[in-house]
Amino acid sequence: MKHVAYFPSFWQPQKTMVDYTVLELPSETMVNQLQRTDGGWQTGKSDSSGASNSGSDSSKESSRCSTPVLDADRTDRLRDKMRRRMESGDRWFSLEFFPPRTASGAVNLISRFDRMGSGGPLFIDITWHPAGDPGSDKETSSIMIASTAVNYCGLESILHLTCCNQTKEKITAHLRKAKRLGLKNIMALRGDPMEDKWEEEEGGFNYATDLVKHIRCEFDDYFDICVAGYPTGHPEAESYEDDLMHLKEKVDAGADFIITQLFFCADTFLKFVRDCRAIGITCPILPGIFPIQGYQSLRQLVKLSKLEVPEEIKQVIEPIKDNDAAIRNYGIELAVSMCKVLLESGEVPGLHFYTLNREVATMEVLRQLGLWIEDPRRPLPWAVSAHPKRKVEDVRPIFWASRPKSYIYRTQDWDEFPNGRWGNSSSPAFGELNDYYLFYLKSKSSKDALLKMWGEELMSEESVFEVFTNYITAQPNRSGHKVMCLPWNDDPLAPETNLLKDELEKVNRRGILTINSQPNINGKPSSDPVVGWGPAGGYVFQKAYLEFFTSSENVTALLKVLKKYEPRVNYHIVNVQGQNTTNAHDMQPNAVTWGIFPGREIVQPTVVDPVSFMYWKDEAFALWIEQWAKLYEEESPSRMIIQYIHDNYYLVNLVDNDFPLDNCLWQVIDDMFELLDSPPENLE
Amino acid sequence: MKHVAYFPSFWQPQKTMVDYTVLELPSETMVNQLQRTDGGWQTGKSDSSGASNSGSDSSKESSRCSTPVLDADRTDRLRDKMRRRMESGDRWFSLEFFPPRTASGAVNLISRFDRMGSGGPLFIDITWHPAGDPGSDKETSSIMIASTAVNYCGLESILHLTCCNQTKEKITAHLRKAKRLGLKNIMALRGDPMEDKWEEEEGGFNYATDLVKHIRCEFDDYFDICVAGYPTGHPEAESYEDDLMHLKEKVDAGADFIITQLFFCADTFLKFVRDCRAIGITCPILPGIFPIQGYQSLRQLVKLSKLEVPEEIKQVIEPIKDNDAAIRNYGIELAVSMCKVLLESGEVPGLHFYTLNREVATMEVLRQLGLWIEDPRRPLPWAVSAHPKRKVEDVRPIFWASRPKSYIYRTQDWDEFPNGRWGNSSSPAFGELNDYYLFYLKSKSSKDALLKMWGEELMSEESVFEVFTNYITAQPNRSGHKVMCLPWNDDPLAPETNLLKDELEKVNRRGILTINSQPNINGKPSSDPVVGWGPAGGYVFQKAYLEFFTSSENVTALLKVLKKYEPRVNYHIVNVQGQNTTNAHDMQPNAVTWGIFPGREIVQPTVVDPVSFMYWKDEAFALWIEQWAKLYEEESPSRMIIQYIHDNYYLVNLVDNDFPLDNCLWQVIDDMFELLDSPPENLE
Repeated sequence: MKHVAYFPSFWQPQKTMVDYTVLELPSETMVNQLQRTDGGWQTGKSDSSGASNSGSDSSKESSRCSTPVLDADRTDRLRDKMRRRMESGDRWFSLEFFPPRTASGAVNLISRFDRMGSGGPLFIDITWHPAGDPGSDKETSSIMIASTAVNYCGLESILHLTCCNQTKEKITAHLRKAKRLGLKNIMALRGDPMEDKWEEEEGGFNYATDLVKHIRCEFDDYFDICVAGYPTGHPEAESYEDDLMHLKEKVDAGADFIITQLFFCADTFLKFVRDCRAIGITCPILPGIFPIQGYQSLRQLVKLSKLEVPEEIKQVIEPIKDNDAAIRNYGIELAVSMCKVLLESGEVPGLHFYTLNREVATMEVLRQLGLWIEDPRRPLPWAVSAHPKRKVEDVRPIFWASRPKSYIYRTQDWDEFPNGRWGNSSSPAFGELNDYYLFYLKSKSSKDALLKMWGEELMSEESVFEVFTNYITAQPNRSGHKVMCLPWNDDPLAPETNLLKDELEKVNRRGILTINSQPNINGKPSSDPVVGWGPAGGYVFQKAYLEFFTSSENVTALLKVLKKYEPRVNYHIVNVQGQNTTNAHDMQPNAVTWGIFPGREIVQPTVVDPVSFMYWKDEAFALWIEQWAKLYEEESPSRMIIQYIHDNYYLVNLVDNDFPLDNCLWQVIDDMFELLDSPPENLE
Repeated sequence: MKHVAYFPSFWQPQKTMVDYTVLELPSETMVNQLQRTDGGWQTGKSDSSGASNSGSDSSKESSRCSTPVLDADRTDRLRDKMRRRMESGDRWFSLEFFPPRTASGAVNLISRFDRMGSGGPLFIDITWHPAGDPGSDKETSSIMIASTAVNYCGLESILHLTCCNQTKEKITAHLRKAKRLGLKNIMALRGDPMEDKWEEEEGGFNYATDLVKHIRCEFDDYFDICVAGYPTGHPEAESYEDDLMHLKEKVDAGADFIITQLFFCADTFLKFVRDCRAIGITCPILPGIFPIQGYQSLRQLVKLSKLEVPEEIKQVIEPIKDNDAAIRNYGIELAVSMCKVLLESGEVPGLHFYTLNREVATMEVLRQLGLWIEDPRRPLPWAVSAHPKRKVEDVRPIFWASRPKSYIYRTQDWDEFPNGRWGNSSSPAFGELNDYYLFYLKSKSSKDALLKMWGEELMSEESVFEVFTNYITAQPNRSGHKVMCLPWNDDPLAPETNLLKDELEKVNRRGILTINSQPNINGKPSSDPVVGWGPAGGYVFQKAYLEFFTSSENVTALLKVLKKYEPRVNYHIVNVQGQNTTNAHDMQPNAVTWGIFPGREIVQPTVVDPVSFMYWKDEAFALWIEQWAKLYEEESPSRMIIQYIHDNYYLVNLVDNDFPLDNCLWQVIDDMFELLDSPPENLE
């Protein structure tokens, strides 16, 4: 049911990607020239000022795009994204987070990435906490959180890295690991010494400049590097001017852009930028914005950063220091007005927010500035991963639509990702099914909450039908709790699935336990708020899809009914043992979502693939046990009911190939019930 | 304008490809089983009797189809096609031709292949004429004619090969060459000795059996092999029974099927089949049908084959021997009634026709039998090649739509062909432009006829406009001749282009010299007689396309107008020097034809590809000179007019991306003329 809300990350309007400059003939400087080469005629490359638009840079590296370049942001590196945004005058924002302390904190932070990612940050960054084992495989480590943001949330991410108290070898190992995990950007910092007193360390690094040099030396141009700027000078610097020169050294050593420490006054930042430019620092300088969110957090940050809070702010805050809401509102107001000054100055291409891992204040500031994308465009109908290896990926099986993180996890070892056509991929080998407890796949709900939603005690299979039905209707169950998720869908119904709500309710009541569906779509604009995706000016299409668990009695009737729908409806029907009945080609995927766009090849991001379905069915059946049955005591009636369903039901998927006509899948189900309700000899 | 009539060769209805047998659960023999292997779960392969349909055999050779299997006939080898037809009960026909004597005969024969190919023969075969240098590179040789039929006409073809008077080495060389040219089927014959008396040759072959063994020995299973059967015994055989045993030897040596010598009575053939079966010959046996087409040809064939014409036929023919039409009608009647008996016997899966390189009689017999496909389905919107290397090919640039043979020729050296997505192909390297005189690219019209159509003497550019306009309207020109072709289109307007006739006439009159176009199509059934292609139950789509030559004055106005149509209309505008103006991505193809089919991935057979366009424009401009200017004396005014157009006009292509709306390209042209008609300052 695509119950997951898509978080489309970096989708940007077409105008930033393609420059349709039309130029007059026949000026030679303005047209492509052909050069005769040995092999025949070849088109000369035009640069972006030519009449031929430049498109994405990636196309310049090879003779031919391997993917229809739906979203240049997806293929560019961060510094190129910034450059293109600056050229087009599109302002951006970015968000800073720190790693959580606990595993459940990590689950919450990842949900927050999804929610805040939907507003369209250009990137996020994750701080490096030396005390928290930041380079380890712990689910709370800086590097794992950054990797999750990139791989599973599709967010362009910067990993902080500090160099004090670390050997060169250790730092190189961290960087190698970061690269292996798909991280592409590093914020190079000195970091704070463990002791109060800073002591130079032999064989290590003493300044961020050393770290920048080391990254460039060991990893060449692989990473984009960010460094910190101090609008009022670093607290340990000898002078403001001396600190500026250190900043210039960092940039000269290979840094790509600067993010500043927080400040309380727009003029502080604007003067700093002028001073930087004066000594020859030309890279982007992003102001660090700190919306005041509470009295204690302000005090703490000020202490750490050794900044002074201006008197006029103190005077407002002190009287309301116990009123969190009042302080937050004041902080929002203050941040908005300062940001407006910054943006109006023309010196600020993007704003960087110190979120303190909180949502409300930052989102409100961004909304008031008009930078928060309320109705984000989706580059593809599913959430893309930001791992560089996956940048060409543009086809996925529909089965994982509500579990994209599981799909990404299970395919992380693939060397190549399907591009253009699923059938071009080699036979898929999916990772093992040991991922129910991976933190980024954990349910947002506690065991207690799940029991309230799914039933403290199940009486029969019909109790299960009710859970499914209540999930669809979003009505409270018998004990007054709304069913907000199911094992296959950790989020409420997607807006698209809501289009099918009445029909879904009806069939779930009778034991057609739906876990995925989509309506048929016959050429809606790509800008459609519910089903649209991809660049402007395109059209999107879908074949109707329905996937559900149901009893073997129902399946027997269904198979009889399906004969009437040949070849309009394709089906796969499988039980937990893998007994599989289908009328589809056993190797041929069926495209169920596709889009047609100006000047591009066809994009078909979702397929029903018979081979992957066998991997998905293992996962889909296992979720009954792992997520639901195990909530109950062994041997308890509730657990045995779920176990019975797991052992005896079939997983069914149906595709209505006739997408321009009314979806016939509901009629198929109706016919099935009619047959079941008729005299038994009809079923023989 | 797709002026070429597509000849879709082997398209067969869906039912022969897919067996949608639905079986009841849970019988284990009837469902796919999953086997646990080390790597994880893998689907077990079902055979064609399973619930999972078998699809094409090719899918069984690899884990994944590389192409959406639009047409299983396209990927199967001939013996598998026969097997599937026999399983499904679909009767077929095949056609025998002999190589022509002259080059112009070759041009005519190839046109005949196109026309007769459109009726849907399962295969054709080309006889081997030892006296005509049959293995040479001459355009009239057996091997070149067979290769042309396969590669350029897309016809499954069998090359005859005789072994008498040839060394093993020579025969191996012929077979190697045949394989290199894409031929996959050999009719292995002894052949007739040069002298009347047959003498065994040392180091050579004496019987067809030896040739069959040699082919299997040297080329393993590469070729499908056909051998000849003699329903009344070979004239040189010791006895009918002895000849049957020789036939069994040939089959045992590795032949796949049998085609018989002609006969005059159905019972002769049916007895022969029974006798073959009795001695254990199980392969298909195809009756050779010879519709009597004239008195002389009958006499000659009877003499060669040493057959006797039955008395009752002689009695009918002798009195009308000078009346060709009467004899032909009698021959048709005789053949139809004999074929009906054969087909009704149930022993005959397909009929093989000795055409004598003539069309009328054979086509009429096939029409009366209901075997001639009047409205053939097209597997793709363009004519596919039957070369095994090209069997995955399913994307081509639109530019060669009317010159598919040129496209096939210029891409014959590619190692891989675009499949699924044009962008997956490596940078295309097109063959050189030296092919105007290749016999399969020659115009069907003589120089004299071309001058009559295109003008003995041109007065101005407007004379050229008139030629284009007359081609579109199919009206006689000033000297009373219809313009049946243009240098870019050797055939009259395609039915699809006729949809645009009025608009095309209007713009050609004013110097928009159109050479290619297609209307927009928003989801017509794949069975549509004009624009449909691909399997049943699908939908086809097109973006409107227009390609034309026009003056630089027009182009200047056009570019101004096109600004209003951003980004709806993509364009490429290029002159003969290669100065190119475009608003499209310089590497990204634009899909302009695509189809959606049950249970398949999207197929997008036609693209506007910016890189290939540069190769096409060389060909398109050169055709002005090679095909038109050179009709006139050097320095003649006519020639100078064409030369001027060649040197100064631009080649323009336009795509309207908004396929669901009314085609806006005519409005673009209207706007351009309006701008040209307005005061000159508007153009500045």
